[in-house]
Amino acid sequence: MSVVNEKLKLENIRSALIRQEDTIVFDFLERAQFPVNEKVYKEGSEGCLNLQQTDKSFLEFLLHEEEKLYSLVRRYASPEEYPFTSDLPEPILPDFKKPFPLHRNEVNVNAEIYDYYVKEIVPKICANGNDSDNFGSTAVSDIRCLQSLSRRIHYGKFVAEAKFLANPEKYKKLIEARDSEGIINAIVDPVQEGRVLQRLHYKALTYGRDSADPTKPTDKINADTVVSIYKEYVIPMTKKVEIDYLLNRLKD
Amino acid sequence: MSVVNEKLKLENIRSALIRQEDTIVFDFLERAQFPVNEKVYKEGSEGCLNLQQTDKSFLEFLLHEEEKLYSLVRRYASPEEYPFTSDLPEPILPDFKKPFPLHRNEVNVNAEIYDYYVKEIVPKICANGNDSDNFGSTAVSDIRCLQSLSRRIHYGKFVAEAKFLANPEKYKKLIEARDSEGIINAIVDPVQEGRVLQRLHYKALTYGRDSADPTKPTDKINADTVVSIYKEYVIPMTKKVEIDYLLNRLKD
Repeated sequence: MSVVNEKLKLENIRSALIRQEDTIVFDFLERAQFPVNEKVYKEGSEGCLNLQQTDKSFLEFLLHEEEKLYSLVRRYASPEEYPFTSDLPEPILPDFKKPFPLHRNEVNVNAEIYDYYVKEIVPKICANGNDSDNFGSTAVSDIRCLQSLSRRIHYGKFVAEAKFLANPEKYKKLIEARDSEGIINAIVDPVQEGRVLQRLHYKALTYGRDSADPTKPTDKINADTVVSIYKEYVIPMTKKVEIDYLLNRLKD
Repeated sequence: MSVVNEKLKLENIRSALIRQEDTIVFDFLERAQFPVNEKVYKEGSEGCLNLQQTDKSFLEFLLHEEEKLYSLVRRYASPEEYPFTSDLPEPILPDFKKPFPLHRNEVNVNAEIYDYYVKEIVPKICANGNDSDNFGSTAVSDIRCLQSLSRRIHYGKFVAEAKFLANPEKYKKLIEARDSEGIINAIVDPVQEGRVLQRLHYKALTYGRDSADPTKPTDKINADTVVSIYKEYVIPMTKKVEIDYLLNRLKD
C-alpha cells in the first residue's frame, strides 16, 4: 500500500488552513493601514505608474516583476503556489526532489481573485482616499494579500485530492456523471464551515486589537467584514477549485 | 515660521512606531512557522542556492533581486526605507514631490541588522532543523522581517530630527562637543521605553494566540523572546541610529 503524502493527511490540511487564516488576517491588517489608493490599480495616465513602455497598472507591473523573481527561485513548482501573471522565466534552482502530491492540473482562478480583490476587498477593508506617499507600500501589501488568498483558495486542491483518495470509487462515479453538486456535497462539512467563520471573527478581533486598551476592539479592521469576505468569496471560490480539480481528476 | 512636516510630529512618530511593532510581531510569527533552515543563509555548496554564477547565499541572492525591483519603483527614495544591498538601479518613477523631511544623511545600519537577524533572531524564534520544502517561503519571510526591523530602527532618524528641531541650540552644543551620551540622555525617555516593552509582550502574546483555546497562549512565539530582542537589540540600535544621525546633523 502506498504511503499517503504528508500534505494530503486531513489533519495536516486542516492545520495548514487554520494557519493560513492568520496570515490572511495579518495581511489584511497591514493593507488596511493605507487608504484605497485607486491610482495603484489604474492603467496608463490614470494610474501612478504611467510609463511609456507599459500600459499596466502599478500593481500589475509590480506583481509581474515579483512573480518573475519568484518563478526563478521555483515558487510555482510548489503545489501550493500559483502565479497571477504569465511569461515567467524557468527556475534556476533544480526541481524539488519530492513527488508532486496532487494530480497534475491546470486549475488557476487567480484572474478572478485579482478582480475580486481590487474591486471588492480593497474598498471594504481600506478607508477612501489617496495617499501618494504610500503607493509602493500599498502595492507590496496588495501582493501579499493576493498571494495569501490565492494559496488558501487553491488549497482546495489538497482537500479534494485527500477526499478522492479516501474514497475513489464514490468520486469516480460523481466525476463521470459530471455531478458538480454531488461532488461538493460529498466534500463539504457545514459544521466545519461554521467553525471557520467563528474562528475568523475571533482572529480579526484579536489581531486587530489596540494594545492601549485591550478591552476595546479597534476599527483597524472590521471583524464582520473579514467574515463576510470568507463567507461570500473565499469559501465559494475554494469549492469552485475543488470541483474544477476533481472534474479533471480522471484525465492522464 | 516654517510648518513642521507631518512625519516629524512626535505624536505621528509615536503612532508609526506603535504600528510598526504589530508588523514586526506579525512578521516574526510568520517566520516562526518554519524551522531555522540554515541552508538559506549559507554560501556556495553549503547553501541551497549553489549556482555557478554566484557565491551568495539564497537569502542574499533573493534580497538583492527584491531590492533591485523595489529600487526601480522608488522605495529607497523614501526617508523610511533603506536597502541592505548595493548596486541598485535608478528608479523608473519620477521623484516624490514632497520635501524630504530629514537632513540628508548616509546612516544605514542594515549590514549589522542582517548579521544579528541571521545569527541571533532566527535561532531564537524558530525551531531547529531543516525543511527543504520551505526554503523559498523562509527567505521571503526573512526579507519581510529584515525590512520591518530596518524600518523600525531607522525610524530613529525621525525621532532625532524631531527632537533636534524642538531644541536646536541644546542639540547643537551636544553635537559640537561630540557628546554621544549627552545626546542620548536628551532624547530617551525611560518611562516610554518601559511602555514599549510592556506593549510588545502583550502583542506577542495576543497575536500569537491559538483561536482554539484563547485562554492559553501558544508557543507560536515566546513573548519574552520578542521583548528581549527589542530590549537587547532594537532599542540600542535605534539609539545608535539617533546618535549617528545627529552627529552628522550640522554638516551641509
